[in-house]
Amino acid sequence: MDIPTLADVRAAAERIRPHVHRTPVLTCATLDRIVGCELFFKAENLQRAGVFKARGATHAVLSLSPEQAAAGVATHSSGNHAAALALAASIRGVPAHVVMPTSAPPVKRAATSGYGAQITPCAPTLRAREDGLARVVARTGAHVVHPYDDPRVIAGQGTAALELVEAVPDLDLVLAPVGGGGLMSGTAIATHGVSARTRLVGAEPAGADDAFRSLQQGLPLPSVNPRTVADGLLTSLSERTFTVLSTHLDRIVTVEEEAIVTAMRMIWERMKVVVEPSSAVPLAALLQADFGQRDARVGVILSGGNVQLDQLPW
Amino acid sequence: MDIPTLADVRAAAERIRPHVHRTPVLTCATLDRIVGCELFFKAENLQRAGVFKARGATHAVLSLSPEQAAAGVATHSSGNHAAALALAASIRGVPAHVVMPTSAPPVKRAATSGYGAQITPCAPTLRAREDGLARVVARTGAHVVHPYDDPRVIAGQGTAALELVEAVPDLDLVLAPVGGGGLMSGTAIATHGVSARTRLVGAEPAGADDAFRSLQQGLPLPSVNPRTVADGLLTSLSERTFTVLSTHLDRIVTVEEEAIVTAMRMIWERMKVVVEPSSAVPLAALLQADFGQRDARVGVILSGGNVQLDQLPW
Repeated sequence: MDIPTLADVRAAAERIRPHVHRTPVLTCATLDRIVGCELFFKAENLQRAGVFKARGATHAVLSLSPEQAAAGVATHSSGNHAAALALAASIRGVPAHVVMPTSAPPVKRAATSGYGAQITPCAPTLRAREDGLARVVARTGAHVVHPYDDPRVIAGQGTAALELVEAVPDLDLVLAPVGGGGLMSGTAIATHGVSARTRLVGAEPAGADDAFRSLQQGLPLPSVNPRTVADGLLTSLSERTFTVLSTHLDRIVTVEEEAIVTAMRMIWERMKVVVEPSSAVPLAALLQADFGQRDARVGVILSGGNVQLDQLPW
Repeated sequence: MDIPTLADVRAAAERIRPHVHRTPVLTCATLDRIVGCELFFKAENLQRAGVFKARGATHAVLSLSPEQAAAGVATHSSGNHAAALALAASIRGVPAHVVMPTSAPPVKRAATSGYGAQITPCAPTLRAREDGLARVVARTGAHVVHPYDDPRVIAGQGTAALELVEAVPDLDLVLAPVGGGGLMSGTAIATHGVSARTRLVGAEPAGADDAFRSLQQGLPLPSVNPRTVADGLLTSLSERTFTVLSTHLDRIVTVEEEAIVTAMRMIWERMKVVVEPSSAVPLAALLQADFGQRDARVGVILSGGNVQLDQLPW
């Protein structure tokens, strides 16, 4: 099982640098006071395509050989990975094929087609998505890029944390949200590669707590009927991301829905940035649980900002 | 009439540096494509207190002699200047007295008292505000800081544009919203001081177009019953800001309410930042009028991000 190293993350950073934003690290004295520690937010909601996934997808697509890339890339996705892969393919100048359930939010469909992807609609079931993708691949020969179970993608996602720890030395803690575990894995590898003493904490909705249960039980357990407002965190760990998280994480903190919405609104109101619910899960964890963050220097990855502005959860 | 120079803006920048954010310059490929030029947004919505006014207020308060500062500072304001002055006073460690109409939005009142200001409520008329302020000054001896008709305030506001033109050389155009003209004056002085060839354009709501009419008629004409969703731009130019704008501006573009809301939503959706309606007025101008911006390098000051999140204009 191929697991990327700090060197892979550094190489990914070099490769994607001309194509993605070096996002700012935001601070907010009011939130510091409320939480009782020093917070440094890596604003990946300001990343291209509005999400950290632009990093992993771009790295994966730029890593393909000319032969692999020639027929384009493909995936099934209802959200951020679709738009990120479409952007990455447009950077490389190859076609992107996205199988997208008809239930996908209009704003995500628009973003994906805006980057020039060919969208194939399908029924909103995993079976229909996988069948649709198989047919697209059979027809086009496109290379499939998985949203998180891919060492090239994980190395790419890790570049956000690499920029964070380069910009802010001496972090005591780094938090990221956990869905399929791609962001958390890249974050852990980059952070521990640069600073072995920094503790890593994952944050997960209680309604989609497969990673919490998996780490507790010592084996990857899939989500069963996950339900959460944090629509980017519905997926389950893979063997690969489970292995990385088991190795690196201090713990996973789970949070309730109301706490996620409260934290999300706090970020909008106090920091003046648009984040999607998934991005607010680490702040919700900081507000709720005690894991030694008092007076600490804490890095937080704000994962993305793609949200339907006329359907806000408050 | 004391009008600040580039040297004053540079001195202000030195003085306030430890106390305010050096805000990021944001870019967005999608907006570049929509508008047809290269846009560089100076994100003052991410400034402390959520607004560029933290710069001018902090500079004014730090410029006071110990004797002037001893009794604290005072103003009347229903919004951003109140919070900014309260923040500035807390930085200096002196009291802030704010006369605030009972009609002020709860979020602004909370921000102002959150920074420790003494708030004196008054009726929502200019007369009641001025009377209230006179009484507060008589009682406390506090030093009054005007929101824009003050060379120290104007020099402070200019530091945002100074950072912008230092970070992004060779701008063809710089735009800012125009209310009382403090931000636009500071922006003009800093920009032309560094780059004489850069053209300056003010953007104003058609429903509060006193600056547009003033420049057209060649004398400062007050707003009469201004009405606009851009609640930060209701005020009228002073003699001082009129003089600066007459000297430096290429033109003022006025925009309708619907265009402001459309531009505001576009910034939230595409750039993932929370801006108040006033901040969106320059983008609305770019989308609506032709003043030679095609393919140009265009700087835009995003003035602030203080907005009531459960009363959005869409």
